[in-house]
Amino acid sequence: MATVPLLSDEALSPRAKAVFDAIRAARGTDYVNNFWRALAHDVDALEETWGRLSVLMGPGALDPLVKEMIYVAVSTANGCSYCVHSHTAAAKAKGMSAEMHAELVRVIGAAMMTNGMVTALQVPVDEVFDV
Amino acid sequence: MATVPLLSDEALSPRAKAVFDAIRAARGTDYVNNFWRALAHDVDALEETWGRLSVLMGPGALDPLVKEMIYVAVSTANGCSYCVHSHTAAAKAKGMSAEMHAELVRVIGAAMMTNGMVTALQVPVDEVFDV
Amino acid sequence: MATVPLLSDEALSPRAKAVFDAIRAARGTDYVNNFWRALAHDVDALEETWGRLSVLMGPGALDPLVKEMIYVAVSTANGCSYCVHSHTAAAKAKGMSAEMHAELVRVIGAAMMTNGMVTALQVPVDEVFDV
Amino acid sequence: MATVPLLSDEALSPRAKAVFDAIRAARGTDYVNNFWRALAHDVDALEETWGRLSVLMGPGALDPLVKEMIYVAVSTANGCSYCVHSHTAAAKAKGMSAEMHAELVRVIGAAMMTNGMVTALQVPVDEVFDV
Amino acid sequence: MATVPLLSDEALSPRAKAVFDAIRAARGTDYVNNFWRALAHDVDALEETWGRLSVLMGPGALDPLVKEMIYVAVSTANGCSYCVHSHTAAAKAKGMSAEMHAELVRVIGAAMMTNGMVTALQVPVDEVFDV
Amino acid sequence: MATVPLLSDEALSPRAKAVFDAIRAARGTDYVNNFWRALAHDVDALEETWGRLSVLMGPGALDPLVKEMIYVAVSTANGCSYCVHSHTAAAKAKGMSAEMHAELVRVIGAAMMTNGMVTALQVPVDEVFDV
Repeated sequence: MATVPLLSDEALSPRAKAVFDAIRAARGTDYVNNFWRALAHDVDALEETWGRLSVLMGPGALDPLVKEMIYVAVSTANGCSYCVHSHTAAAKAKGMSAEMHAELVRVIGAAMMTNGMVTALQVPVDEVFDV
Repeated sequence: MATVPLLSDEALSPRAKAVFDAIRAARGTDYVNNFWRALAHDVDALEETWGRLSVLMGPGALDPLVKEMIYVAVSTANGCSYCVHSHTAAAKAKGMSAEMHAELVRVIGAAMMTNGMVTALQVPVDEVFDV
Repeated sequence: MATVPLLSDEALSPRAKAVFDAIRAARGTDYVNNFWRALAHDVDALEETWGRLSVLMGPGALDPLVKEMIYVAVSTANGCSYCVHSHTAAAKAKGMSAEMHAELVRVIGAAMMTNGMVTALQVPVDEVFDV
Repeated sequence: MATVPLLSDEALSPRAKAVFDAIRAARGTDYVNNFWRALAHDVDALEETWGRLSVLMGPGALDPLVKEMIYVAVSTANGCSYCVHSHTAAAKAKGMSAEMHAELVRVIGAAMMTNGMVTALQVPVDEVFDV
Repeated sequence: MATVPLLSDEALSPRAKAVFDAIRAARGTDYVNNFWRALAHDVDALEETWGRLSVLMGPGALDPLVKEMIYVAVSTANGCSYCVHSHTAAAKAKGMSAEMHAELVRVIGAAMMTNGMVTALQVPVDEVFDV
Repeated sequence: MATVPLLSDEALSPRAKAVFDAIRAARGTDYVNNFWRALAHDVDALEETWGRLSVLMGPGALDPLVKEMIYVAVSTANGCSYCVHSHTAAAKAKGMSAEMHAELVRVIGAAMMTNGMVTALQVPVDEVFDV
């Protein structure tokens, strides 16, 4: 259960409906996932978030699939179950194979492990890392 | 300052020295960074960690540069300053341009943002994400 | 499911029952939520936690509603679903409107975003912030 | 040290300079803090972040001081030292007294404490929290 | 639901089956929990993770029960529900009494509390802590 | 630098001085570390925190050394550098050997690793973990 009701299509304001139309067009599917239905109560945030993410997660200096995997990595470290699910699904839709997924999980695990060891050891930053 | 002394080359055990030699050979530089000098007190952990990371972070189902950026993403979410510095440096050494770095920072920021919004809203996982 | 059984009213020790009576009196409702039922196994912790929170979250230098929103913010960043739910409910009970809730979610999202960007960039603290 | 050089005024692009001018005008001071100097390499992110934050952190459904304290709370839970410093300074500038600061610290501490206890106990969410 | 299917015994590769046999023999039970069934898709990670954990969590410089409690503490701070459940169960199986569990929860809570207060106050590290 | 001034002995209120006297007596040293000097501005919090921690971290169902190591584990996962330093020093003072410290670091690292893998895989909790 959410801390706000999820909005059905019938309950959307005209501005929210326009964002949902844009989501459907961009993804080529009628399905709009729960994040947007929870956010639709705050149409300014809905417009801004979709506007920002739809550009950022498209082609750029990094490949869209790479960006989805980075998203999964951050979401995992933050313990956001919903975000892990939605961005793992998005990564698969953009071509992440089972082998790539397995390696992503291993890299996340290794990073978590050395993050913990480094922090427990309080290793000082090397001067050579200075830009 | 660290919670253990950083070991100089002179203080290394023979097994630790062998790992340092492997690090130097793999990287083509005499410089060995502080993480390994802190870990060198525990030669089992030193061997195991270098053995695992040197394979995992090399070529595989994912590009080595992509894996460094995933490492930076996890390290950022965990707030590990040392790890952010060392893996950002590694990513640059593997070809991360300023544009790629800027986009990495933006994706991390966006993921953190929606992680927070999703968790505050407690959005339930969509059935369609089920594998 | 919890890692300890939730205690029903019948299973409470006399000291635990006294705390539950205080919770019911303070809140004007017979309902006692699961956190206290899980904590009731450790009556010292139950007394101490209720004693501390009931004073701290009441009137003080900060408004009680503001304190509930700060609680939601911390709970969100820590990924504690139960805590997000219980303190969002408490904030609503203390007068948080839908507009205030939406703005709270946006501020949490923005803070998470810049936390990530600042940490990825490892921005050094400005001297002017020194007190 | 940062993972990118901090840009001096002389090194700013015209678009970045315009954002710095806006920051100076809004705050009534010539000082521009390090976050913006690190972000100035990515002028799109600089414009977007300043544009968003300057509106969000101003008057709205919540008081600007309350929003700064929420920002401190999130930044603390995420362990972002820079962010704790900069937003504590901003909160003081907006009127946070020593008593309010002390209470903020206590509420953050209490929230962290019960977040940990609830997560260790894995307390299930009460049905009554459903909206 | 998981982001990969959980593998039944029938679906295991020979190498994965060998690890499951080792898990069953070490624990003296036919039950293999879901973590290993999710990890079994990546037999290298399965072998490596079981090999590492089965040694590390056994007798050593620290008592196995103490190590399970440390595991619960880390898992709680990271908000990993599954890990809290599985390692609390393991700690109980290794002799953690209800009184020890209650004290573990209190220590975790206290550590979270002072972590938050220290970070909000940005307390500088004392010179005397230098090793 | 801290977000509040650190109080010298001369600046303490009588109630704060009484707590400092208790800290000195309990530890058998004149040195009082920075956490207490930062907290001394809020004498209620100072009394309450010292009162709680001095009892909790003493003998109980768990050994005081074990409790310090649990404290280090939580502080590491939360990225609190000060807390890692102060509680590692406390653990050493209570008898943590170099071998125990090394094993603590390895267990923290392993827990972080599997926390990340479990969260990335979104492994569902086994029914058998139900108490």
